Amino acid sequence: MDFKELERRLVEFRDARGWRKYHTPKNLAISAAVELGELLEHFQWESDGEILEAVKESGKKEAIADEIADVVIYLTLLAHELGIDLSEALERKIEKNGRKYPVGVTSD
Amino acid sequence: MDFKELERRLVEFRDARGWRKYHTPKNLAISAAVELGELLEHFQWESDGEILEAVKESGKKEAIADEIADVVIYLTLLAHELGIDLSEALERKIEKNGRKYPVGVTSD
Amino acid sequence: MDFKELERRLVEFRDARGWRKYHTPKNLAISAAVELGELLEHFQWESDGEILEAVKESGKKEAIADEIADVVIYLTLLAHELGIDLSEALERKIEKNGRKYPVGVTSD
Amino acid sequence: MDFKELERRLVEFRDARGWRKYHTPKNLAISAAVELGELLEHFQWESDGEILEAVKESGKKEAIADEIADVVIYLTLLAHELGIDLSEALERKIEKNGRKYPVGVTSD
Repeated sequence: MDFKELERRLVEFRDARGWRKYHTPKNLAISAAVELGELLEHFQWESDGEILEAVKESGKKEAIADEIADVVIYLTLLAHELGIDLSEALERKIEKNGRKYPVGVTSD
Repeated sequence: MDFKELERRLVEFRDARGWRKYHTPKNLAISAAVELGELLEHFQWESDGEILEAVKESGKKEAIADEIADVVIYLTLLAHELGIDLSEALERKIEKNGRKYPVGVTSD
Repeated sequence: MDFKELERRLVEFRDARGWRKYHTPKNLAISAAVELGELLEHFQWESDGEILEAVKESGKKEAIADEIADVVIYLTLLAHELGIDLSEALERKIEKNGRKYPVGVTSD
Repeated sequence: MDFKELERRLVEFRDARGWRKYHTPKNLAISAAVELGELLEHFQWESDGEILEAVKESGKKEAIADEIADVVIYLTLLAHELGIDLSEALERKIEKNGRKYPVGVTSD
């Protein structure tokens, strides 16, 4: 799946249910934050080692994958409402990051 | 760009800079939350109407697009570290949502 | 209740349950973010008018109050772990804000 | 400082600047999330040990304290707008937690 296809499917899904009226920029941004909170819940009390161990179990891995997907879904819908081409935005941001942090010059 | 290509480019970018050691699950999840906070800043004091008006200006639109891209970038890197196929996760989540909210049965 | 009393009670509560080992700075900051996500859930699809109407119902008001309290609880525990006096921090921040935004000079 | 005093000072501060019109429930909740994002930024790439070391330096400690204060400030203003008594909400939540996690019965 690419970003265009994801956007198309999400908008179609939403319009088939008459939900567009709820999809204001603020509501969608809040929704992304709600889902990110649910994602963080999986990392709340566990160490990085425990998390990496836990995702070997498929149920846990799927639960975390679902939360990541939910955030991406709301961000895609938000981008759609604002007329933002997410694929293009990612290209541009990666390029900007490349200029900001040239290889071999980083403080690392 | 599709999700596989995005993941490949981000991992390559990171490894060229020796940043993998910082990319623990908790750090990446926190990073996604930091960027989402920066995205929310654009919606803090403006109404939905004002936001939709503001993105007609290309600088504002690009600033918001950059923040959305940053969240997606960190989520893609997080999925990578956890062995999650983001494209597959999105497919599965859309399918789950379709079963949870069948067309014509929603309360809307 | 003042901030010192809140801190004292929360630390006592935690220590009586042997939870200190989980209360690292990152875990407590993540926990505050998780609870803030739950707070945002109450504002996800409703307009400001609907929210103000909904809190007239005591169950809804208590549910939101619980989430606000949860965030404040985790922030108080985080401040405790970092040796931060929250009451003093609030005094200083209000004073800084007063210098930053003098009355009668704001753009409003 | 106690919660009543904090609330009184923040409302006075805001009203002196004519900012009440911006203080809708959604805007204040988003603002709390923005500030929590800024707090998380301090924990983004550092380990717990590094954070505890860093706050020994007073500038870093004050920077983190400022962000914690900012979140508490917006939550207090949100509680005010919703008619929630934050001190009472904290009392009730601590009591609920005590019933939910009785001493000596926790799984720890």
